[in-house]
Amino acid sequence: MSETSKTPLLDTVRSPADLRGLDVKDLRQFADELRAETVDAVSVTGGHLGAGLGVVELTTAIHYLFDTPDDILIWDVGHQCYPHKILTERRDRIRTIRQGGGLYGFTKRTESVYDPFGAAHSSTSISAGLGFAVSGELQKKEGRNVIAVIGDGAMSAGMAYEAMNNAAVTGSRLIVILNDNDMSIAPPVGGLSAYLSRLISSRSFRSVRQLTMMLAEKFPRQIERAAQRAEEYARGLLTGGTLFEELGLYYVGPIDGHNLDHLIPVLKNVRDDPQGGPILVHCVTKKGKGYEPAESSADRYHGVGKFDVVTGELYKAPSNAPSYTKVFANALVKEAQKDDRIVAITAAMPSGTGLDLFGKAFPARTFDVGIAEQHAVTFAGGLAADGMKPFCAIYSTFLQRGYDQIVHDVAIQKLPVRFAMDRAGQVGADGQTHAGSFDIAYLGCLPGFVLMACSDESELVHMVATAVAIDDRPCGFRYPRGEGVGLDMPEEGVPLEIGKGRIVREGNSVAILCYGQRLQDSLTAADELAARGWSTTIADARFAKPLDEDLIRRLAREHEVLITVEEGSVGGFGSFVAQFMSHDGLLDRGTLKFRPMVQADRFFDQDKPEKQVEAAGLSTRHIVRTALTALGQDIGEIDLTA
Amino acid sequence: MSETSKTPLLDTVRSPADLRGLDVKDLRQFADELRAETVDAVSVTGGHLGAGLGVVELTTAIHYLFDTPDDILIWDVGHQCYPHKILTERRDRIRTIRQGGGLYGFTKRTESVYDPFGAAHSSTSISAGLGFAVSGELQKKEGRNVIAVIGDGAMSAGMAYEAMNNAAVTGSRLIVILNDNDMSIAPPVGGLSAYLSRLISSRSFRSVRQLTMMLAEKFPRQIERAAQRAEEYARGLLTGGTLFEELGLYYVGPIDGHNLDHLIPVLKNVRDDPQGGPILVHCVTKKGKGYEPAESSADRYHGVGKFDVVTGELYKAPSNAPSYTKVFANALVKEAQKDDRIVAITAAMPSGTGLDLFGKAFPARTFDVGIAEQHAVTFAGGLAADGMKPFCAIYSTFLQRGYDQIVHDVAIQKLPVRFAMDRAGQVGADGQTHAGSFDIAYLGCLPGFVLMACSDESELVHMVATAVAIDDRPCGFRYPRGEGVGLDMPEEGVPLEIGKGRIVREGNSVAILCYGQRLQDSLTAADELAARGWSTTIADARFAKPLDEDLIRRLAREHEVLITVEEGSVGGFGSFVAQFMSHDGLLDRGTLKFRPMVQADRFFDQDKPEKQVEAAGLSTRHIVRTALTALGQDIGEIDLTA
Repeated sequence: MSETSKTPLLDTVRSPADLRGLDVKDLRQFADELRAETVDAVSVTGGHLGAGLGVVELTTAIHYLFDTPDDILIWDVGHQCYPHKILTERRDRIRTIRQGGGLYGFTKRTESVYDPFGAAHSSTSISAGLGFAVSGELQKKEGRNVIAVIGDGAMSAGMAYEAMNNAAVTGSRLIVILNDNDMSIAPPVGGLSAYLSRLISSRSFRSVRQLTMMLAEKFPRQIERAAQRAEEYARGLLTGGTLFEELGLYYVGPIDGHNLDHLIPVLKNVRDDPQGGPILVHCVTKKGKGYEPAESSADRYHGVGKFDVVTGELYKAPSNAPSYTKVFANALVKEAQKDDRIVAITAAMPSGTGLDLFGKAFPARTFDVGIAEQHAVTFAGGLAADGMKPFCAIYSTFLQRGYDQIVHDVAIQKLPVRFAMDRAGQVGADGQTHAGSFDIAYLGCLPGFVLMACSDESELVHMVATAVAIDDRPCGFRYPRGEGVGLDMPEEGVPLEIGKGRIVREGNSVAILCYGQRLQDSLTAADELAARGWSTTIADARFAKPLDEDLIRRLAREHEVLITVEEGSVGGFGSFVAQFMSHDGLLDRGTLKFRPMVQADRFFDQDKPEKQVEAAGLSTRHIVRTALTALGQDIGEIDLTA
Repeated sequence: MSETSKTPLLDTVRSPADLRGLDVKDLRQFADELRAETVDAVSVTGGHLGAGLGVVELTTAIHYLFDTPDDILIWDVGHQCYPHKILTERRDRIRTIRQGGGLYGFTKRTESVYDPFGAAHSSTSISAGLGFAVSGELQKKEGRNVIAVIGDGAMSAGMAYEAMNNAAVTGSRLIVILNDNDMSIAPPVGGLSAYLSRLISSRSFRSVRQLTMMLAEKFPRQIERAAQRAEEYARGLLTGGTLFEELGLYYVGPIDGHNLDHLIPVLKNVRDDPQGGPILVHCVTKKGKGYEPAESSADRYHGVGKFDVVTGELYKAPSNAPSYTKVFANALVKEAQKDDRIVAITAAMPSGTGLDLFGKAFPARTFDVGIAEQHAVTFAGGLAADGMKPFCAIYSTFLQRGYDQIVHDVAIQKLPVRFAMDRAGQVGADGQTHAGSFDIAYLGCLPGFVLMACSDESELVHMVATAVAIDDRPCGFRYPRGEGVGLDMPEEGVPLEIGKGRIVREGNSVAILCYGQRLQDSLTAADELAARGWSTTIADARFAKPLDEDLIRRLAREHEVLITVEEGSVGGFGSFVAQFMSHDGLLDRGTLKFRPMVQADRFFDQDKPEKQVEAAGLSTRHIVRTALTALGQDIGEIDLTA
């Protein structure tokens, strides 16, 4: 801060307790300063901006009125939490956000008592909030409030509906604030979104008086149960309650989520509601609010790099190689030009998955189902059952949301759904909640699946072609976040032979069998081993399922050490190789040292991807050390310790 | 059938085409015969009865009016499909249902062209149906109808909501029939259920004329888009549309689902709707309809054993040992008497999980969240974050529905949610869709989890106590379907030392390390090996995570052969042992033959559990053969071939 601070009020507030010492009339200025600080901080670090700007007033009002951290405040997704972090004793570290050793880009329990339930994936807040609400009742924590703030995009996920459905019957005291900005990452899609738009446009913002009356109505209702039911019939069903009322939440709104003169009295009334039961406050906000470059951008600066605060201009790092995401999208477009049965499905991530490019080429064959991975998978299953060739493009970490559907609707029925899994392995700044660590294990255990991972962007093109060709069973292919290695790209993809790997370099002492993106580091490791006199074979497995048994046998018989490397957990590729080798007797003879390298068994904090790989124990250094140790070499004098 | 058949009309109908040859006035009699045949068949085989009886008229009407199998009919869950199977060329095999080699207890693609999309887990039908609907449009299959029949319980799952949300915007032609019987397995819970009850009780059944008018209204609406919007405001929001209309489906109903005089004309109108868009027909039915013993039973004969048709009396097989389900429930009740922080959560399976017993003892500490596994897990996460000790009791196969929540909300946050996983391993008559095959793999890859499996019912009691004691991280314990081995039960559970197994029998040639229920067969295998002169150590691992490394080292060093056995897929316990042993150098010396036994890499048809274990390659016979082969013995003369 300079000598004449641009944020004099904010400078006096370290925690919500300080905020509560301000006069209510100062909150407008406070919010403006909080917004300015948010913009400035993100301009330095990059990160999620638009969502945070949309909830500056909400953040201010909630912390002003509620007794956080004793009252429980849960932000859905958590990417809108930058103002919340600034306000909750983390302003001094806000410019470390998303960086190694810095603040997390989402809410995180271990980071602050003001983050009672962490997030990053969408639509969990009502469920978690209900857990706190019920727990509070059982533990007789009387007067404690639980607030869940959830966006309209997140509200379209089935999980939020399940939670509302349950909240209605527990009757627990829970405040759900629907932050309706008509945007999740992309503009939201689906019936709920259309409904909310109609709801807002058909009802003008309620005045404070009207809202207070809405709340006042709530109290007598709940005292007289019989009368209440009668009134519900009359009010809800015959004269038109909202969807939320029909599910059993008390609905208040719509309310202008940027107007503190409305927010404060209404939330105060909600807070002071003497009755129980879940309440939904419908706030209308604008993503990117108050920062012109964000407001006028198509994605409202959802996630941005560093930028110039005055102009909003992004400082873009020059890119040499195309991203894997683009390589996938372009390859799929090319295949789809040849085969009109190819369709593509995304769950609210058109640009993240590259399907925006596919959608431009084939709008009628592109389906954005919203934040709805469960539906996405089975919808793809239906398409496949009817003879289409669906590509279901979902990040490795989000595909976890559709796991049962993969097992039950796709694998058991052997339907040829193709899963394109972006963000496989470590993902950098988004950290542990977004890492794609488990897909090899959770898919590899399923009968009938074909699983692939690409070692470079050229391989990805061929794997897309292979996935098109596999039309009698499900398959999946994983590829990392970020840019390729910079190879010349093939004109078009050529289907690979299923279950066959390739030898990349021939040697005779050590064999390194890679699955996916660790191939480049393995080549470097081979160079280092060569410098120490050890000849190394490098093989690219390409397939985790089915395994290339001939290749594994050859590697096992012709080398002293066999190392597998993958960017994933135990239970994946290395485990499948171990299973095969054990039963094939390849480990019986004492002539081979087998070392399956997987990531360390823990979650990894955000950092540069190469540092995460280092932390996971999968870097070049680790591969070299594993090989030398297995060879019985003294590694004391070289710097190979973690 | 006797000479004077009780089902003369049904006898003339082998397929829907035959049905469509009947006069509409004969359908009532046909439906009565179909109901009688369903009751008679299930009385012989056992199985799902109540749900099928509730949809006899719907089944009749749909196949009469729609051109199945060219029109696509998808039954949600599929346990109500017995009348459908009788009517679709499978009557001759209906008395083989749920038996080895017989018909499947749910719909199944490989069984019949009349089952275009199989099911067994709940709430998938709208997603799959939408896939067909969209595919039909892309492939220009004009005039093809897609019908999804879904129960009110299934409608409470988030997946159904995601699908409706998406159906609204694709605008595809899709007919959703809501089969509202106010029952799933247990009486349903939640806001939606309450809403549907109010909807029905506040509106009497529509007359055919009213229903026809409702549909007639639909057509002009969709022609004039602008007018439609205005009307939606007026009709839906200001005067009260249903929840389904608010999500974007055209709602027709409620209609008496047992009255063919209503069903036929209304469904005919729906079929002949010249416009597109999803329609929801709200049918009210009665589970168990038309069979008095079922109608008057609390669970409406949801799933039954064989019974006497006249009296409805069930033929119960005498039970010697208590079921694992009951052992779990009783153990949890005992623990909860000592610790008031213990709470229990089920997702619509109170009796299947034994939590009905817990609920009787602790009604305020028992939560049935409905068919909502995603919410169940994160709700438990919220409870744990606030200091409670939640037990989330979900079958292994259904827990797949909450996988991302386990990873993101529980494991990453290291919250002490306890997962009680019933139906681990093969499950008998329910077959491949219900087998608990993957939980060891999909949970074992997650950092920080403690995983247990019990080898008998006494161990289960101790594992419940252990789960209570583990309060700093998540844990899960798996146990099989069916009865225990008949041991004396401990007075109370005693927490086990985490990550420590036990030696059950000492030997010196072969070591069998079991995880879970294969211990009994392993003991028999040891006897057979002893008879052939081989001394066998049997160890009960108890924990798959963390591993008992000392025990594994000892077994590896002191035996010629080490076999691991588990009732689960690759990527599980055996893989964790392989990973440890590889890096510990235990496989380097050529002194040990390691054979991790997992189930064969395919899905298994329904059969008696012991036959399924045989098919999976995990029976006593397979264990003996694996040991002898590893020992280099000639097994030619003994019958050990599969």
